[in-house]
Amino acid sequence: MVKMNDNYQKLPGSYLFSTVAKKVNAYQKAHPEAEIIRLGIGDVTEPLVPAIIEALHGAVDEMASRETFRGYAPDLGYDFLRNAIAENDFQARGCDIQADEIFVSDGAKCDCGNLQEIFAVDNKIAVCDPVYPVYVDSNVMAGRTGMYNKERENFDGVIYMPCREENNFLPELPSETPDLIYLCFPNNPTGEAIRKSELQEWVDYANKTGAVIFYDAAYEAYIAEEGVPHSIYECEGAKTCAIETRSFSKNAGFTGLRLGYTVIPKELVRGGVSLHSLWARRHGTKFNGAPYIVQRAGEAVYSEAGKAQLKEQIAYYMRNARTIKAGLTEAGFTAYGGVNSPYIWLKTADNMTSWEFFDYLLNKLHIVGTPGSGFGAQGEGFFRLTAFGSYENTLEAVKRLKSM
Amino acid sequence: MVKMNDNYQKLPGSYLFSTVAKKVNAYQKAHPEAEIIRLGIGDVTEPLVPAIIEALHGAVDEMASRETFRGYAPDLGYDFLRNAIAENDFQARGCDIQADEIFVSDGAKCDCGNLQEIFAVDNKIAVCDPVYPVYVDSNVMAGRTGMYNKERENFDGVIYMPCREENNFLPELPSETPDLIYLCFPNNPTGEAIRKSELQEWVDYANKTGAVIFYDAAYEAYIAEEGVPHSIYECEGAKTCAIETRSFSKNAGFTGLRLGYTVIPKELVRGGVSLHSLWARRHGTKFNGAPYIVQRAGEAVYSEAGKAQLKEQIAYYMRNARTIKAGLTEAGFTAYGGVNSPYIWLKTADNMTSWEFFDYLLNKLHIVGTPGSGFGAQGEGFFRLTAFGSYENTLEAVKRLKSM
Repeated sequence: MVKMNDNYQKLPGSYLFSTVAKKVNAYQKAHPEAEIIRLGIGDVTEPLVPAIIEALHGAVDEMASRETFRGYAPDLGYDFLRNAIAENDFQARGCDIQADEIFVSDGAKCDCGNLQEIFAVDNKIAVCDPVYPVYVDSNVMAGRTGMYNKERENFDGVIYMPCREENNFLPELPSETPDLIYLCFPNNPTGEAIRKSELQEWVDYANKTGAVIFYDAAYEAYIAEEGVPHSIYECEGAKTCAIETRSFSKNAGFTGLRLGYTVIPKELVRGGVSLHSLWARRHGTKFNGAPYIVQRAGEAVYSEAGKAQLKEQIAYYMRNARTIKAGLTEAGFTAYGGVNSPYIWLKTADNMTSWEFFDYLLNKLHIVGTPGSGFGAQGEGFFRLTAFGSYENTLEAVKRLKSM
Repeated sequence: MVKMNDNYQKLPGSYLFSTVAKKVNAYQKAHPEAEIIRLGIGDVTEPLVPAIIEALHGAVDEMASRETFRGYAPDLGYDFLRNAIAENDFQARGCDIQADEIFVSDGAKCDCGNLQEIFAVDNKIAVCDPVYPVYVDSNVMAGRTGMYNKERENFDGVIYMPCREENNFLPELPSETPDLIYLCFPNNPTGEAIRKSELQEWVDYANKTGAVIFYDAAYEAYIAEEGVPHSIYECEGAKTCAIETRSFSKNAGFTGLRLGYTVIPKELVRGGVSLHSLWARRHGTKFNGAPYIVQRAGEAVYSEAGKAQLKEQIAYYMRNARTIKAGLTEAGFTAYGGVNSPYIWLKTADNMTSWEFFDYLLNKLHIVGTPGSGFGAQGEGFFRLTAFGSYENTLEAVKRLKSM
């Protein structure tokens, strides 16, 4: 008799965003006339920019003729894309990352979820609290945690690093030494950024303890302030302790196209084993490359036209972020983020719990956000709104929030 | 200090097709004038058919305007595609599979590699020998096997089911009872098919023992003979013991587009746990949907125009298969497969080992195939050629083989 992976049973209920989607769908079905504004899931709404559309059409045409048809892509990504990434995202910022240290994938979520596989099961992970659920859930599935502790509302065997108002939403070095440290800056869900000097402390700590940092820089494109690092490789010594993951979803609207990448420097070695070679083996065995046409779309992100068009698109979303934050502040809310990131992290009204506030906003104002407690116990009493709606919807949402 | 997943160290060298690619690239570099014909990796060469190209362009245009832009796809696939699959691939053949039992993915290789995750680590797997390397390698990485046994040239703790000339390349029920059974028909690499009555025995066996069958039907579109099942769900009772995976790569040329799907019937339950719900949780946590434009391309596979155009494309490849097989037979080789599959499985010349024969063909005839021993110990002395080249190249390859 086959036995199932019991670790899945430790996960409470369904994936956060699936739960949100179900609640919203149920409400919409019961109230078809309600004009719901969705500022919950971090999904973009602006269309792909012309440079990307052009690249897609061009690549599709290539697939139509025998001379230019492309079959299986190279496991780790096409050179044209890996080179563009290395040059633009790293070398242009003074980070010494080479094209062959970049692994192209079908999205940062997949990389975030899969990367834990190359580590032993008995490692201890450290995560911020609140945190993007994929880091923890994928480790639960792998058996790298204990049971879910209902009282503490988190998992035994995981080091949680509280990120609250008191510490400006920045994790502190934990008292117990972790093996694998998940950091995400600009942060999801709090929207707060980390300074380079602050991130350097983490790099030094990891190099000293032999830990590995998994650095999720999915929101890098929204950084507006000086002194905020775009890549962990801006820090000295990061190549011997850090993996970085990036997404094309938020900077270029690829949520429905699927493209991301992970950087593993060749110098990153633990116990004599090269992490680069393990991940290459994983990619080669369980993945078959991102679609050629999507990789060509990714290349267009780095073209002159693409860069200019995307700069405008990000400015559009950031105007939304400022609008929400200013509106919330005017309405008397306490709100964070929204400066170097498309997320606004606000305190709920009237000491409501996060889910109470979710239901209130959905039922009364027809606004969807994400309950802070869905990101962890320390997110209780907070709520995440995103800047990814249209400007018109954002204005309307702010109007409704002010009416509360 | 972080510890790496030691199981990766059990894997000997690199993934088979990476090794083949490296050898071919090295030879081509040293002999730039050599006109190498690639019949090794199972990669298609014909362009996407017009119905698919049209669907792709149409979907790209949708992504260019705010009104029709699509962000995150539903985790498990768009309904338009899941419905088309359920109707055409299953219900039209009398298999009672519903759309919500279909999980759309970025390819069958990923599904083959990832599906083992939902099973406990202490299950015992059974695989055919020779076999598609992903089934075994992904289980090695998960720690579900022992060490690599150099003498036997396979892994301790895995039940290998020899598929040789003596048993018409069909596995026999193993003496030790497995928990998870990998079957692939029409088979990769042998190209041989299984009859429905023969597959029914496996279904009955799995239902009796509580095992689960992972059925890889990636080559279903090449079935030409009556009595050969297109889906395991044609067998009675399969819905309580079998998972089936399909690919769009071989039937529609999607190797570079990436699309596949896995069927898990809701009736498939072990130890009180629904496998459907575990896989849904896995998909929701570690995957973010296949690209919208690619799912629209998948839908076009089931349109009237798409079906007609793809029928021709498959006929084109099958003419290649017949040409290779007839040529090999004429040249005095013993060859199998090529009737219900695009693969020809031949015995090497002069009792050469598979890799000797690989080197011989590459160096002397400039033909690339895949060494049988790369698929397992029982593949030694065999060699795989694919029908996925152009007709002209296939004729030229046959000419060269006859010249031996």
